[in-house]
Amino acid sequence: MDINKKPIYPVEPWNITETEFSMETNYRNETTFALSNGYIGTRGTFEEGYDFSVDEGLEGNFINGFYESVDIPYGEWNYGFPTKSQSLLNLPDLKKTEIYGDGELFDMRTGKVEDYSRVLHMQDGYVERKLTWTSPKGKKLQLVMKRFVSLVHKNRMYQQIQITPVNFSGEIRICSHLNGDVENHTRKTNPLIGYGPFGSRLHMDKLQAEDGVLYYEGTTLQSGMTMACASEYKIAGAGEVVTVFGTDEEKRHAVCESRMEVSENTTITCEKFMVYTSSQDMEAGKLEGFAKKELKEAVEGGWQKEFDAQQAKIHEFWEISDVQIYDDEALQQGIRFNLFHIMQSAGRDGRTGMGAKGLSGEGYEGHYFWDTEMYVLPVFVYTAPELAKKLLEYRFRTLDQARDRAKVLGHPKGALYPWRTINGEEASTYFPLGTAQYHINADIAYAFWLYVSVTGDLEFFKDMAAEVLVETARVWADVGYFAECRGGKYCICAVTGPDEYNAITDNNFYTNLMGRENIRYALKALEMLKEAGADVYEAFVSRMGITEEETAYWEKIVENMYFPYDENRQVYALDDRFMMLRPWDDSRIPPEKRHLLYENYHPLFVYRQRMCKQADAIFGLYLHSNFFSKEELKRNYDFYQEVTLHHSSLSNCVFGMLACQIGYYDEAYEYFAQSARMDLDDYHDNFYAGIHAANMAGTWQAIINGFAGVRVNGGGLELHPYVPEKWNGMQFYLLYRGRKLKIQLTHEKTRVELAAGDAVTLKLNEKEIHLEPGEGSVYEEEI
Amino acid sequence: MDINKKPIYPVEPWNITETEFSMETNYRNETTFALSNGYIGTRGTFEEGYDFSVDEGLEGNFINGFYESVDIPYGEWNYGFPTKSQSLLNLPDLKKTEIYGDGELFDMRTGKVEDYSRVLHMQDGYVERKLTWTSPKGKKLQLVMKRFVSLVHKNRMYQQIQITPVNFSGEIRICSHLNGDVENHTRKTNPLIGYGPFGSRLHMDKLQAEDGVLYYEGTTLQSGMTMACASEYKIAGAGEVVTVFGTDEEKRHAVCESRMEVSENTTITCEKFMVYTSSQDMEAGKLEGFAKKELKEAVEGGWQKEFDAQQAKIHEFWEISDVQIYDDEALQQGIRFNLFHIMQSAGRDGRTGMGAKGLSGEGYEGHYFWDTEMYVLPVFVYTAPELAKKLLEYRFRTLDQARDRAKVLGHPKGALYPWRTINGEEASTYFPLGTAQYHINADIAYAFWLYVSVTGDLEFFKDMAAEVLVETARVWADVGYFAECRGGKYCICAVTGPDEYNAITDNNFYTNLMGRENIRYALKALEMLKEAGADVYEAFVSRMGITEEETAYWEKIVENMYFPYDENRQVYALDDRFMMLRPWDDSRIPPEKRHLLYENYHPLFVYRQRMCKQADAIFGLYLHSNFFSKEELKRNYDFYQEVTLHHSSLSNCVFGMLACQIGYYDEAYEYFAQSARMDLDDYHDNFYAGIHAANMAGTWQAIINGFAGVRVNGGGLELHPYVPEKWNGMQFYLLYRGRKLKIQLTHEKTRVELAAGDAVTLKLNEKEIHLEPGEGSVYEEEI
Repeated sequence: MDINKKPIYPVEPWNITETEFSMETNYRNETTFALSNGYIGTRGTFEEGYDFSVDEGLEGNFINGFYESVDIPYGEWNYGFPTKSQSLLNLPDLKKTEIYGDGELFDMRTGKVEDYSRVLHMQDGYVERKLTWTSPKGKKLQLVMKRFVSLVHKNRMYQQIQITPVNFSGEIRICSHLNGDVENHTRKTNPLIGYGPFGSRLHMDKLQAEDGVLYYEGTTLQSGMTMACASEYKIAGAGEVVTVFGTDEEKRHAVCESRMEVSENTTITCEKFMVYTSSQDMEAGKLEGFAKKELKEAVEGGWQKEFDAQQAKIHEFWEISDVQIYDDEALQQGIRFNLFHIMQSAGRDGRTGMGAKGLSGEGYEGHYFWDTEMYVLPVFVYTAPELAKKLLEYRFRTLDQARDRAKVLGHPKGALYPWRTINGEEASTYFPLGTAQYHINADIAYAFWLYVSVTGDLEFFKDMAAEVLVETARVWADVGYFAECRGGKYCICAVTGPDEYNAITDNNFYTNLMGRENIRYALKALEMLKEAGADVYEAFVSRMGITEEETAYWEKIVENMYFPYDENRQVYALDDRFMMLRPWDDSRIPPEKRHLLYENYHPLFVYRQRMCKQADAIFGLYLHSNFFSKEELKRNYDFYQEVTLHHSSLSNCVFGMLACQIGYYDEAYEYFAQSARMDLDDYHDNFYAGIHAANMAGTWQAIINGFAGVRVNGGGLELHPYVPEKWNGMQFYLLYRGRKLKIQLTHEKTRVELAAGDAVTLKLNEKEIHLEPGEGSVYEEEI
Repeated sequence: MDINKKPIYPVEPWNITETEFSMETNYRNETTFALSNGYIGTRGTFEEGYDFSVDEGLEGNFINGFYESVDIPYGEWNYGFPTKSQSLLNLPDLKKTEIYGDGELFDMRTGKVEDYSRVLHMQDGYVERKLTWTSPKGKKLQLVMKRFVSLVHKNRMYQQIQITPVNFSGEIRICSHLNGDVENHTRKTNPLIGYGPFGSRLHMDKLQAEDGVLYYEGTTLQSGMTMACASEYKIAGAGEVVTVFGTDEEKRHAVCESRMEVSENTTITCEKFMVYTSSQDMEAGKLEGFAKKELKEAVEGGWQKEFDAQQAKIHEFWEISDVQIYDDEALQQGIRFNLFHIMQSAGRDGRTGMGAKGLSGEGYEGHYFWDTEMYVLPVFVYTAPELAKKLLEYRFRTLDQARDRAKVLGHPKGALYPWRTINGEEASTYFPLGTAQYHINADIAYAFWLYVSVTGDLEFFKDMAAEVLVETARVWADVGYFAECRGGKYCICAVTGPDEYNAITDNNFYTNLMGRENIRYALKALEMLKEAGADVYEAFVSRMGITEEETAYWEKIVENMYFPYDENRQVYALDDRFMMLRPWDDSRIPPEKRHLLYENYHPLFVYRQRMCKQADAIFGLYLHSNFFSKEELKRNYDFYQEVTLHHSSLSNCVFGMLACQIGYYDEAYEYFAQSARMDLDDYHDNFYAGIHAANMAGTWQAIINGFAGVRVNGGGLELHPYVPEKWNGMQFYLLYRGRKLKIQLTHEKTRVELAAGDAVTLKLNEKEIHLEPGEGSVYEEEI
């Protein structure tokens, strides 16, 4: 990890610009320019559809929640090990559009490319490429290509290609392809897993090229899901256009080709419309009708209308979510890049979640982890609660699978969420770093609680949250035991905390703390239901079979949770084992192996070193800082700061946030800076495999929850602002219980404005402030 | 497990008799009547070569150390996970010999069987079957079949078939087969593993039927080992014999068939000779010559000579090893059955070990575990030290692989033995119950130390033992750490002790204790080398690179090893986790699932229950009882007695031995009884897959080290005899430092006789006794 890299792209407030095409950076840049709307995801590959090797690029097109299964092999199988994989499946490509000028195929690897730029317009939600290309034979074309994945219509993608022959008049030929001969690059994108999907995993049910429409329908070989996709284009600015269609069943390929004569310096425009859908949304038999209807509407509506709608939609997002940093353009760019990617990656239909890599690549098989709840959700809860709600709804809808999983793990009651999944069932094949991470249950409960706390959405609470809180709590009440040898405290053994370098341990601090709070939320939820009315409460308690004995047991756990503590250092130990381990000694490890420990060292060696990959205990202390004194937080921070290697992308932002709380502002700033530009500058050298969504969201948290000190863990909304010395200030919005708050912080002044909504009381540092619509809507304080 | 079963076979002192043939019991009985000489192993299948289904039987023929590898699949691979399997390979069968009487094939499933018996003659080392068979058409044959695997010539097996037509004169036809179309029954015999070998894994290099000799040579597809086997027979008592040969390459089959006319009530005898060898002993090019030469010698020597030699050889074994129990025939039979099987199963060429199932089946893939060192070795050390030495030599010869493995696990120095292996490399695919069992290192060191202590074999000590003791100690000196939080004591984390229901824990009592003793042995070894002479010592220390700093560190560990202790109960905890776990509650588990926990419960559930599968801490306390007071031992026994489920066959004998030491004689007797007849009465319902060699050896230990109280852990030889109330007494021999001691114990008298060798001093209870050749050779004491 090189955190002192020069910026890869020019520093600009709203754009990411690629200034030249190169094979070496192609794979990474495909992720940078990936587009999504939370349903469709498409990598930033070129319209030319280059046939890159597996080390150079991946033509990736995905539908959220659409996966293929294969049998998972095990050296030795044990009961409860998942038997079927879930891998986000790479789907047929529709984007490829070849252009011929006077018979010569446009290809940036031949001829000469000038005035090249590719821009991710983050503010407006599209990618644009411009260039002038001189063919090997000297024919010059000016090209402008735009692309967006519609944030308005989840099934649609749009392309626009403008072609101008600069130094000749002649034939322009446009070939639009549908390529069904695609496969995942599993060995490249998930090198340690021992199963596929390998090869083509879609049975092609239909392939058509009719009336200008290319259509494909296919069904996965094992998971039994059907998807359909279709494309059509129209050409403007040309004279007579001759169009031919064709399919090649064997190659799973369809093409639509148009030829036209174009005069020198005349611009023609090709608008291309693409639709993806799947049997997750309707019966397979209805896919063709639906896809073609969507496509027809897109074609009839045309490019410009939806291009405008796209911009309007994303402006709504930025209206609330944009964080302005005064006078630090590099970090400004970083935070916007990160916000853009997490916004576009979130599933928003209530039956899909958000992958650790969004829909930008195949990394982690497209699985959903705790990253969503603990890193992404807090951002949306404060800025885009509808997205947050939909992601939580996905967890609610998979509660039955979690109930089944709890039984598999031997818990007679309750629900245990899977460590990694797409369909709600556990897909982690290596349980020490998978199923053993029980904290996922508390993380999900935390996110439900946070959503309800910040939004005040009582309907959601009653309909979904309460049930999830109770069912997750029940597993915590079964997994541990009041151990005599620990003074009767409640101990939780044989779990793995967030840190992936410490596995199968006892009394992981984070786990015990989060588990306790999970139970507390369940108890509070019951109180809230009581307040909502005896009938509501009685119905719930009766349906869930909750007894007084059960809640009394929960209370006993809350009061008696055990936490590992090191008396010498006066810090919380990561777990019961940590302080017994040999201190990490880098000198035993050759430098080239240090960041790839599991590729170079046996897990048992890793588990025996006193070091962390990432924030673990620290995360718990940050989330529930209200239970700890500042001195305690400092001591713990100082200790874990020393022993944490930050080999995970999930680490920096959390350390940064706790650093803020204890006044370690310089360190906080360093952590924040690393988080903000981690993916943009590819610190981990693996951006090709997809975004690090958790860290991207963590950047927002590091500013808002970190520097601005926004917290609700004490009950109401609190601000504890700090403006880093290197900045002149910052500005952002928060949505809180139906209010819109505008917050401006400078070195001179703190300004909080109730920009919309009813009166509200909040705490600024230790002081309560009250804002009302109208004249009392602004609070300002000189510093 | 049903320990109150009626005896399966008639109770006899020296024989195991099957009184009827039945399909239902065939698979189990194939193990009962399995024969071996530590090199060849052959299951007790019938000469008829029935084509049983995989649930009814397994024609199994094995060569110790001859394995096939396949790629081991992993859901998720991590560094250091073995990539190639090692599976004892099922080899071509030579035994099958069909008999036709007047054109009708002898088959016990047709016609009528009378006067049936099959006997394992344990005293004489062979199996004999007798029966009268009436064919469907009424032709009656009297058959007597004998078989042994030569204890004199490791490559040879012998069969003798005597045929008498009782009620007819006519043609007798004998077909001797060589069947190369064999495969392992992996899915049946190792159902939880996810890899093969499946199908035929030998490439057939040669197949011949020439001059009455059937010959096969084949090479494994992946491990690259070549084996050869050959058979020939001769017939006596018949007139003219017409013999034809043939091979069928496609079926990998060769046959030799003889026809003869035999008069009513005339007995003909077929003597059949079989040879197995492999490229482990010579270049592959020499196998054919060797095998045919061996075969020729066998044929020329004939049956009777080697049958006599076999008996002489095994009598030598019984001469020392037999344990006589006065007047308890069922247990007498059990102990002899167990001794017979472990004797015949031990590798004795110094490059092979002893599988947990001997060579009697495919269970555990034929792997060698700690079973050899901790259960079997102590028997041989006292009764057949040459066998013990050869098994230890195998470990010495694989020291380099163990050194490599230590490096893989991140230890810069030393050797780490594999948890399960054939070739010396780790073959455990599930590291929580495999590689994590570091105690294997200390177990092997213990066995080396015990061998040297009991035999006084200083040559072996200098040549092999010292190096093993030092190299194993070095891993102990690297794996742990002097932990401040435990008062600076040396803690060992993230290991698994012997108990398979408690994995990846910290400070496993057994592991820490055995690891400490391993280091102590290394320190003692250095002292012994010093005593052997400065030059010997200096050469060793220099070759091994041992520094004073290193030995000082070892001493510090020995003095400061940490042991988990429960203050409330005043007992040693199994590990740091155990006392925090929820007490085991059988009522949560349906009865049919209780003995197959890993087939019905996730490992994490199992790891979280306060219970043990088997002796763990108890084993350490027993082995090193000299460090603990009787009261301590009692408290610990009482505790572990309550929490141990004895789901492992390795448990009973150890509990029984500790029970003896603390005077819990009734319990000791119960444990012993269960151990003695565990396999003979198939308590675990899985004898079909092979013997439980460890428990079989544990039976001897339970009598000799248990009831008779034979110990050397205090330094010299001690006896602490007790005769169970149900017995009138017992008698056994011990070899100790070149002496042969005969020990007779009754309720009235203890008698110790120096039967051979120089004067010796030993302790009888607290009293020293001195025996000398001649008049002072007997010590008797009234009780």
